[in-house]
Parts: sequence; structure tokens; C-alpha cells
Amino acid sequence: MVKLEKLFSKMSKRMKSSIIRELLRDAANTSIISFGGGAPDPETFDRNALAEVAQKVLLDEYKVSLQYGATEGDPILKSEYIKILDERNGIKGLRQENMLITVGSQQALDLMGKIFLDEDSYAMISHPVYLGAASAFRAYGPKFITIDLEDDGMNINQVEDALKTLDKRGEISKLKFIYTVPNFHNPAGVTMSLEKRRALIEMARKYDVLILEDDPYGELRYEGERLPNIYKLANGEGVMLLNTMSKVMSPGLRVGMIVGDEQIVARASLAKQGADLCTPTLTQRIAARYLQKGTIFNRIAQSAKIYKSKKDRMLRALKDYVSIDGTRWTKPEGGLFIWLHLPEEYDTMEIFSKAKQVGVAYIPGSAFYIDDRKSSNLRLSFCLPTEEQIEEGIRRLGKVFKS
Amino acid sequence: MVKLEKLFSKMSKRMKSSIIRELLRDAANTSIISFGGGAPDPETFDRNALAEVAQKVLLDEYKVSLQYGATEGDPILKSEYIKILDERNGIKGLRQENMLITVGSQQALDLMGKIFLDEDSYAMISHPVYLGAASAFRAYGPKFITIDLEDDGMNINQVEDALKTLDKRGEISKLKFIYTVPNFHNPAGVTMSLEKRRALIEMARKYDVLILEDDPYGELRYEGERLPNIYKLANGEGVMLLNTMSKVMSPGLRVGMIVGDEQIVARASLAKQGADLCTPTLTQRIAARYLQKGTIFNRIAQSAKIYKSKKDRMLRALKDYVSIDGTRWTKPEGGLFIWLHLPEEYDTMEIFSKAKQVGVAYIPGSAFYIDDRKSSNLRLSFCLPTEEQIEEGIRRLGKVFKS
Repeated sequence: MVKLEKLFSKMSKRMKSSIIRELLRDAANTSIISFGGGAPDPETFDRNALAEVAQKVLLDEYKVSLQYGATEGDPILKSEYIKILDERNGIKGLRQENMLITVGSQQALDLMGKIFLDEDSYAMISHPVYLGAASAFRAYGPKFITIDLEDDGMNINQVEDALKTLDKRGEISKLKFIYTVPNFHNPAGVTMSLEKRRALIEMARKYDVLILEDDPYGELRYEGERLPNIYKLANGEGVMLLNTMSKVMSPGLRVGMIVGDEQIVARASLAKQGADLCTPTLTQRIAARYLQKGTIFNRIAQSAKIYKSKKDRMLRALKDYVSIDGTRWTKPEGGLFIWLHLPEEYDTMEIFSKAKQVGVAYIPGSAFYIDDRKSSNLRLSFCLPTEEQIEEGIRRLGKVFKS
Repeated sequence: MVKLEKLFSKMSKRMKSSIIRELLRDAANTSIISFGGGAPDPETFDRNALAEVAQKVLLDEYKVSLQYGATEGDPILKSEYIKILDERNGIKGLRQENMLITVGSQQALDLMGKIFLDEDSYAMISHPVYLGAASAFRAYGPKFITIDLEDDGMNINQVEDALKTLDKRGEISKLKFIYTVPNFHNPAGVTMSLEKRRALIEMARKYDVLILEDDPYGELRYEGERLPNIYKLANGEGVMLLNTMSKVMSPGLRVGMIVGDEQIVARASLAKQGADLCTPTLTQRIAARYLQKGTIFNRIAQSAKIYKSKKDRMLRALKDYVSIDGTRWTKPEGGLFIWLHLPEEYDTMEIFSKAKQVGVAYIPGSAFYIDDRKSSNLRLSFCLPTEEQIEEGIRRLGKVFKS
């Protein structure tokens, strides 16, 4: 087999390895203080309760939990999550047919790409963008329309201009969706304001364009006022809501979901059937029975305290040690990330190796721009290191920036 | 959103729902005797041991089993499976880089489609074909070259003719792979002879074509002599081996694997990164620790006894009750399926509804031909019903056939 490159598909040639993976490859095995990954603090995992639930699910429900399951997902898990969306998010009237359980929200993103995107399609995304979404969509070969992300969400004027332009060119039907992470954006940490949510819905309606609302961090609000989901504000019309249990229960279970229009859910299920038949029934049933215990929101409240304290410590440390003129950073009310803007002449990819030399890792901003531009931004994750490590890491970073 | 059909991608329009799902939809909720599905007997699942392992893995290894994991898969699971391939299959020298853990072998099939198939590609398959493979590949839009399946595997002369023809037309490089299930084929129950395995390798080498060997049933041999994997016979050159724990441990864990060339495994991992980041770390670690107990092959031997007895009962019942001139069936030495040939004038899709009326389900042969041809064949699965149900179900089927 000498002709491998000729064998590989066009699709596979569009794929790019996550730069985050490459950058953090060494970090995992050293004593480096890592502000890199977005992995939750494992101490927030409710391991005792999950172990107890797993035991029961395996012994008493083995005919379900060890057997093949429906592609659409475990009906009990779906019921439980429908209840949560009703009680916590005010989303009423969802039925089983409105939901597909996926292998994490990464699969939800991939399935959306698979059922919507052709090579001549457009996908509208923010810039910076969540890397996992960009990489899922990119495989299907669409053209990206990028919208600047501001402190209160996507630049709505740019959205409108882009829609107008596409419409004039007669290409509006090639725009398959507007992708947005409205709460505590990854990497930017910002939250879309209520006004912008409403404006986005209005524009999407005017041009009959679908919105993909990706909300992994919505429940991780540490302070300030909760905002309604775009899905809720739009009464579910023209919006698909993606979510995951990764940040609130455990990423290792790989339980995500797609919520919305029955026909779109059905098409995504069809795509999932070919992709992996079904999400593991064991992890789904564990998640379902754990949700039924009714303790998850107490648990999340505890985790939120830990994360808030880490976030505040990082914000204080930034103030204390990174006092360069022209430097600013987002002050998120939730989620896992702070987005740091250094003065324009800085190249955070270049600085990365210097930071590594003093034992600190972060993600350079260029990772979150699909055009691989030079960037003076960087993402800091405060979820995994201890508070002492946060203080020390930011102190070292401050020194590196000044030198 | 009135223009949904316009929104959906070309790829999504190529997807077809599994006819098996549709046919068996009602069967699940009634007292019907089902020879339809290919789900293992849940009494073969080692639930007590798995529950014990799960408990430990969650309590003692929560930092791994509940956290994100490497896209390539759990290194401990990979080591264990490499050991099995060495000791049981005589496949030596595999390294971690030669293996990717997938969400069941369905994802293995999908990833092979994703990284190899373009719309102008060819994929060679047997006819009848494993439906899950056909549906995974079909999404990527290749042209299928179908090869008749005989009692000792694919018709090798047809394979050679097809390769020659493609080569003459200058299209041989568009043939991305030859897909085969050499052991206890689903649906046909047949096993490829040693001679044909060797001949297939030789032809594939001559034309520099990749072989995909899918071996979910290899360990479920109830009698007769074990044959070496095509991968083993070819010293791993030009062959990718797909497998799964679904039939020997539990399908609910969704643990499959791709084994072979490092570069192909790397490309498949890249595709998986965008598809779901990683297979659930929990189910992988459970599988790994369970394999380390070293009891799985005793367990499989027990399951094999159960299945052999069911298979023999079905073969006896077929002899007793389905004695129509021109009827014959395969006599598998393993696996889960018997393939029944009725005289040509029979249409097993038509008979399906009559069988349902007397409370028996099977899968009509047309489900396993990608051209949806009329078929006088049908697939009988003996794994799930009890022996009494097998006897009674075949008795009823015999009556239906005669009427």
C-alpha cells in the first residue's frame, strides 16, 4: 500500500487535528501548570453516587444497560432531560420525538454538519469560535461566514449585513445555520445579551435561517442573572438546541443531546444509525437513574462554588500580575474560560513556548480562528488547577508577558 | 422553517433507515417469536462481574473513567486487546498506534467510509451484505461492486473479473476497499475458506487494493476448525481488521476497534476527533478491567454452548418442518444466523406479513441486497428466543411457507 494519500477521501483531507491536542500533548505528563484544557475538575464528579447507580443499573437492568438500544436514545434519560428543560429552562411541551441522545455534544455537532452541510453550503459562526464545532463542520466542506464576538455576544450588525448580502446574491438558502454558544462562550467567556438573542431570532426568522444554539455551560452560572435560552425565546421555532452532560455530570459518560424540530431530529437519528447505531446504553441509563435521584442541581451548586472561587482568584491574579497597558480580559459570570487580550504587537503562539519554559500552558488565540491568523489573544481555563497553582501560574505568565 | 428538504445535505438524502428496524418495530412490544434481530442473549452478559468492575472503576479510577479520554482510546484497553490478538489470533507485534477504539464496530465502519470514500469511489462488497456496513458506506456516495456470496465465501472469480475490469478502465485506484465478513457472515452464516482467504489476499496485492476484514463473530465458533484471520495471513499488510466486544461481552458498552496500518489508524482517529472526541472512557475502562480478569474466554465458551444448542435446535426444526422441495439453508459452525433459501417463486418480503400474523418474525433477504431486489431468501437469528420458541416458531413458519 504505497498510494495511501491517493486512497484517502477528500473529506479526510479537509480534517485538521486540534491544535489544542498538539499543544497540550507534553503538558499532560509534566508538572506544568495548565490553563489549557477545558476538562472539568474531577473532584466535581459525583463518583460515589454514580458508582452506586452503575451497580444497580448493571445488576437489575442488564437487559437494557448491556443490550443494544434505540438509536434515538434511552427513553428514560430523554424523559428526565425533558423534565429538566421544562423546570429549569422553561421549555415546555417537548416530546420524545424532539430529542436525540448523542455521544457527547461533539457528536451532536458532527450530525448537524452531516445532515445540513454540502460543499457549496455556508455556515455562520462567531470569531473566535468553539474549535470542536469548527472541526466538526469543516469536514463537510462548507464556506464559513465569521462574525466578530463582542463582550455581549456576536456583532449583530455584521450578522444582518451578511444575511442581506447572501440574500441579494440569491444564496441565502445555502446558509444552513447560524452557530452560537450564547452562555459563557468557549473560548471567549462572554454571554449573549437578551437584546441580541431577540435580535438574532428576528433576523433568522426574516431570512428563514436555522439557529444552532450550543449550551454546554448554561448551568454553570456562578453569579448574575440567568438569561433565557434562544430556543425558549423563539418558542423552539427555527432553533435546534445542543447540550451535554459533560460539564455538569461527567464527560467520560459522553452523553449529549439534540433538541428541537421532530423532522430534523429524525434526520439526525438516521445519520446516527449509520454512524454508531446507538449511544452506549450503559452510560445513558446511568445518567438517567442519576438524574432521577434529583440531587444533580445541589451538586452543580457545589461545583459552581469551587469554580467561582477559582475564577475570582484568576481575575485577582490577572489584576495583580498582568498590568500591561492595553491588556484586558473578559470577566465571565460562569463557564470555564477567561479570554485575555494582549496589546496587538504580541503573538501568543510565539509566547506559548516561552510560557512553557517557565512551566505554564494556555491556548493561543489563533487556535480559535479558522483562518489561522496571528493573534494577541489567549484562552485561560481556570477549572483544573488549584487556586495556588492559578496564582503562581498567572504570576509567571505576567513575567513572561513583560519580558 | 418550511424549506427543510432544501436545507438537508446531499449526504443525508443518501441515507436510508434500516429496514430491519422498521420490520421489527412492532415485534419488540408483542409476544411475537422473533428470529429477526441480531442482539445477543442477555443471559450471556457477565453482569455480576461487570457490576463489580464498574464499581471499582468508578470509585478508584474516576479521574480517568469519568474524564475526557484520548481520541485513540484507553491505552489499557488497547494493551489488553493487543494481547488477545496475539494469544488467540496469532497476530504479533501490534503497537498502540495500530489501534483505534470506536463506539462499536458500526463507528469503525463509518470512519472507514469517511476517510476513504468519495462520490466517485468504488467499494466492493458481498451480496448479501451486512446491512450496517452498507448503510455506513452508502452515506458517502460510492458506487458498490457486488460479489456473490457462496457457501465458502465470496465468489473469487467475480472478484478477479471486477478487479481486471476496473484496472482496464483505469479506475482501479478508485476502488477504495474490498469489504468482507469472513467468519459466520451476517446474514449468510457462511465462512470464507482458507483457500479463498489466500486468493483474496493475492488478488488484492496484485491490484494494490485494501481489504477491510470485519470479524465480530470470529470468537463465536461452536464447532469445526478455527481459520486464521485474513489480517494474520497477510501479515497485516494491506488489511484493516475491524472488531467489536458486542457479541462476546456486551453491545451496550459499544466498544469496537480498528486495527492495522498506523497511518490509516491516525487518519481514522482524526475523523473520530471531529465525530465524538472519544469513546466513553467509562465503558472502555470497564471493558479493559474486565478483560484483565482473564475469564472472558471461559464465559464465551459457556455462551457458545447455549448458542450451539439453539442453533442445532433450529437446524433440526428446519429439517422437521420446512421440507419444501428446493429449500435449503446454511449450516453455520458459529455466529448467530442461518440463511434460508426458499424456491425462487417465493417473495420473503410478502410472506413476512403472513408470518407476523401467526406470530413469527424474520428478516426478508431483500434487506441485505443494496438494489432492493425481490428475494426468496431470509435470515433467521437463533440467539434470542428460547429453544422451545425456536421449535414453535419454525413450525409456524413451515406452515406459512406451505400455504
